[in-house]
Amino acid sequence: MTNAPTACLLIIGDEILSGRTQDANLKFFGETLAAMGIRLKEARVIPDEPEVIVETLNTCRALYTYVFTTGGIGPTHDDITTPCVARAFGRNVIRHPEAVRRLTTYYEGHPNAARLKMAEVPDGPDVELIDNKVTAAPGYRIGNVFVMAGVPAIARAMFEAAAPLLKQGAPVFSGHVDAHVKEGDIAAELTEIQARYPQTSIGSYPFYKDGKPGTSIVARSTDKAAISSALADVAAVMRARGAEPFNVPSL
Amino acid sequence: MTNAPTACLLIIGDEILSGRTQDANLKFFGETLAAMGIRLKEARVIPDEPEVIVETLNTCRALYTYVFTTGGIGPTHDDITTPCVARAFGRNVIRHPEAVRRLTTYYEGHPNAARLKMAEVPDGPDVELIDNKVTAAPGYRIGNVFVMAGVPAIARAMFEAAAPLLKQGAPVFSGHVDAHVKEGDIAAELTEIQARYPQTSIGSYPFYKDGKPGTSIVARSTDKAAISSALADVAAVMRARGAEPFNVPSL
Repeated sequence: MTNAPTACLLIIGDEILSGRTQDANLKFFGETLAAMGIRLKEARVIPDEPEVIVETLNTCRALYTYVFTTGGIGPTHDDITTPCVARAFGRNVIRHPEAVRRLTTYYEGHPNAARLKMAEVPDGPDVELIDNKVTAAPGYRIGNVFVMAGVPAIARAMFEAAAPLLKQGAPVFSGHVDAHVKEGDIAAELTEIQARYPQTSIGSYPFYKDGKPGTSIVARSTDKAAISSALADVAAVMRARGAEPFNVPSL
Repeated sequence: MTNAPTACLLIIGDEILSGRTQDANLKFFGETLAAMGIRLKEARVIPDEPEVIVETLNTCRALYTYVFTTGGIGPTHDDITTPCVARAFGRNVIRHPEAVRRLTTYYEGHPNAARLKMAEVPDGPDVELIDNKVTAAPGYRIGNVFVMAGVPAIARAMFEAAAPLLKQGAPVFSGHVDAHVKEGDIAAELTEIQARYPQTSIGSYPFYKDGKPGTSIVARSTDKAAISSALADVAAVMRARGAEPFNVPSL
């Protein structure tokens, strides 16, 4: 896993930071990238402020194999991602001819000026459009940065279209075992189990269910057999505490 | 608003980046801080990796008035926030006597070693416990950093207890007006309205409702009258496009 591609998700939008909108993209990217063996190492949520977008993008694209941005590529005044991406790369903004053609077709020959903004991309030979099956407005790739819409259905459609462009690593699998036992009662044993499975990341997450406290133990690894074995050890510890696991993990 | 206190939310946890858990704290912090006049400028989601936690915390606590961290202060091996916070501040980790007392009372005289981990804090005169009404395990403040649990109900209870310690600014109000009109059809007018209300931040968010596209226009400002006036202008533009707004904003 050490040579696996890495990624950062850059969530651009005042509406997420103000609490107006619940982000629904991070969970999707986390799950999907893990299955592709791309390690999502960080997500940053930043406001619609040009300096912040430019600086954050330049920081993150230097740190990770891939950066995915969501938000700010629509037709309105608050959609400022593309000029910021262009500034970050030191490029001009151009209207992409193919994007203009698609928008013109979609809007029956008459996309207005605002909508033609959605055909704008940074200039350069490393820029390519990313289709989506929901709208006529494309996202795009520039270098190792993938610029996508914020609306979850569109972001997902764009990611599907972009996926073939991505290097993949060994997929990260996960499994879990849950029981009505408090995590503080099995913490010492969990430490030992984690030590026995250094290639498996074991997380402990408390919950309440049916009015009673419980714990979900999650194991993540590229090695399915290690996950199964570690979780079997966890299940044995739970049983030793008198708590029958709800689920027997099968991978 | 320019002198308003600022904040960063640091969401610590592999389970958020893996997609296993949907974050539910950002929206709460965004809404609550806005109402207190504290501007949430950024959120970062980072993994359970000591170097990343230390470095990110030191970066963010230098940039913002306040940093709120969530996650990683429980009893298990994967709860590593406190030693990382201590390293970031160059401090030792100690057992806080008052926290030990509370945990001892709660666990009827016998907190085990794992649970006593929850009494650990960085050393120093600027460290104070943050109560919560859900559990016996406290969060804490160190300098301008507030270290809180990840479980949303506990994070909220800790924030409530910490709120009196925070400098507040002028509260940021928001209002919205929604109609079945495509944002691309009113984008030009929105640009003009934004220009007329420079102290108000106007955002445009497309939606689908009853199978038809629509747009929600959100105005945010410390000035309620400016919000009302800006949204009245937006409503007039929507009506001019033949779209009756669903809601008449009242502030």
